[in-house]
Amino acid sequence: MEEALCHRVGPDFRIADVDPTSTPGFEWNKEDWEHEFHEHDEELQELQAKLYANSRAETPGTGGLLLVLQGMDTSGKGGVVRNVFEAFDPQLVEITSFGPPTREERSHDFLWRVRPHEPAIGRIAVFDRSHYEDVLIQRVRKMAPADEIERRYEHIVDFERDMASRNIRIIKVMLHISKDFQKANLLERLEDPEKHWKYNPGDLDERELWDGYMEAYEIALRRTSTDFAPWYCLPGDRKKYARMAVKYLVLDALRAMNLEWPKADFDVEAELERARNA
Amino acid sequence: MEEALCHRVGPDFRIADVDPTSTPGFEWNKEDWEHEFHEHDEELQELQAKLYANSRAETPGTGGLLLVLQGMDTSGKGGVVRNVFEAFDPQLVEITSFGPPTREERSHDFLWRVRPHEPAIGRIAVFDRSHYEDVLIQRVRKMAPADEIERRYEHIVDFERDMASRNIRIIKVMLHISKDFQKANLLERLEDPEKHWKYNPGDLDERELWDGYMEAYEIALRRTSTDFAPWYCLPGDRKKYARMAVKYLVLDALRAMNLEWPKADFDVEAELERARNA
Repeated sequence: MEEALCHRVGPDFRIADVDPTSTPGFEWNKEDWEHEFHEHDEELQELQAKLYANSRAETPGTGGLLLVLQGMDTSGKGGVVRNVFEAFDPQLVEITSFGPPTREERSHDFLWRVRPHEPAIGRIAVFDRSHYEDVLIQRVRKMAPADEIERRYEHIVDFERDMASRNIRIIKVMLHISKDFQKANLLERLEDPEKHWKYNPGDLDERELWDGYMEAYEIALRRTSTDFAPWYCLPGDRKKYARMAVKYLVLDALRAMNLEWPKADFDVEAELERARNA
Repeated sequence: MEEALCHRVGPDFRIADVDPTSTPGFEWNKEDWEHEFHEHDEELQELQAKLYANSRAETPGTGGLLLVLQGMDTSGKGGVVRNVFEAFDPQLVEITSFGPPTREERSHDFLWRVRPHEPAIGRIAVFDRSHYEDVLIQRVRKMAPADEIERRYEHIVDFERDMASRNIRIIKVMLHISKDFQKANLLERLEDPEKHWKYNPGDLDERELWDGYMEAYEIALRRTSTDFAPWYCLPGDRKKYARMAVKYLVLDALRAMNLEWPKADFDVEAELERARNA
């Protein structure tokens, strides 16, 4: 699957090369979509159960999984989380949404609020927005000096390398939508009273800075896409495609862990005998 | 539904009156089970979305929901969490498993480690084991003096009253299984190498104290079942029944919040005009 995703970010990445309406790696055929989306749900459940079992058994080298989701407003991050993780045991998944930093958070290094949410051993952590906001909105809106932004790219790579060295697999996804798609989504929110709560007049102010954001994304993705924490720039205009692609990236990452059920650390026959008489 | 559950705990509650193999409130008819289990999933999704929307809109009086799950080893708490909450948006549910307290936790009051996990406004918190362990195992194994245990019942009621006063709905469930059912479950874990990680030789030591646990549960449930935080002693030998009953309790609690979509706090027409031109 991963090979089929053309948009793994390398040093020559250009965001303009990614067509937000494309569906690389999957035939855009609505008939089989549901089937393909759920085809590996049992395997996913077994993989996460094995991952958790190894953490419980304290198998040396057991790691975790981190999925970072970024994207412009209305890019569908929430829908990805809802749809991809419905196949997962909710006890094993911790989802953190990073909003604007509080006053206390701003008084610390930008990674201070992020570190406590790295995945525990045997668990899956999902960041809905992340430490990347600190090189995106903060760059576009000049909320931090240029040399501080520079420092952050390196700091992020170090942070992620450290997690990877503890067997945390990291997948980073930018849901790349078109400006037209965002407009349609914002209008939909405004036209439906049940969605008014999702709308914020500030969304249109951010939209005016679209080109600046695309530039900031391009630079950030190039600078921080590594072997141990690659970025994928996924076309986002077709919501079902983005959900499918993220699900398969997670599946691939879990498969690559080569998970086995842990061995019993007690005398099974003796315990069976005890249990039969208990 | 709630009325149909015979086992809401009152002052005369006796655990021996609850048959772990019974299925009060539901016909034990496997044919319709799946349908009935999922019948209200759409409503559940809308209710939780409304709850969250009101928290985002900062609607005064918006609360949260807390589900406390207790039960002997192998009583199926994990299965309840997995099955009931698969219908929920994982972003809105925080599940906390309380294991044996750490050294640091033991150096604080017993509620110290619990308080940070109360539900945020607009969210649902699930406790897999809870502060009740401090009046269950700690009573049975005499890990705390009798007068400290006494103090804790009152302290728990105060803690839960305080949450309720902030519009947090509280549902507390004991999954009541028979000793035979536990034995079968323990044997199953021992006979299946894929389940060995779930087995702990200490489980049989706890099993020897079964009667003491039943007494501790009976006292704890009686002392702490209140109008604002009622206990339900649910028969647990039929796993599908327990999952169904918990799901309907959660549904009833959300319905009782009388949730509406929040009103827009901006000029909708003006924003529509802006968005069309953006």
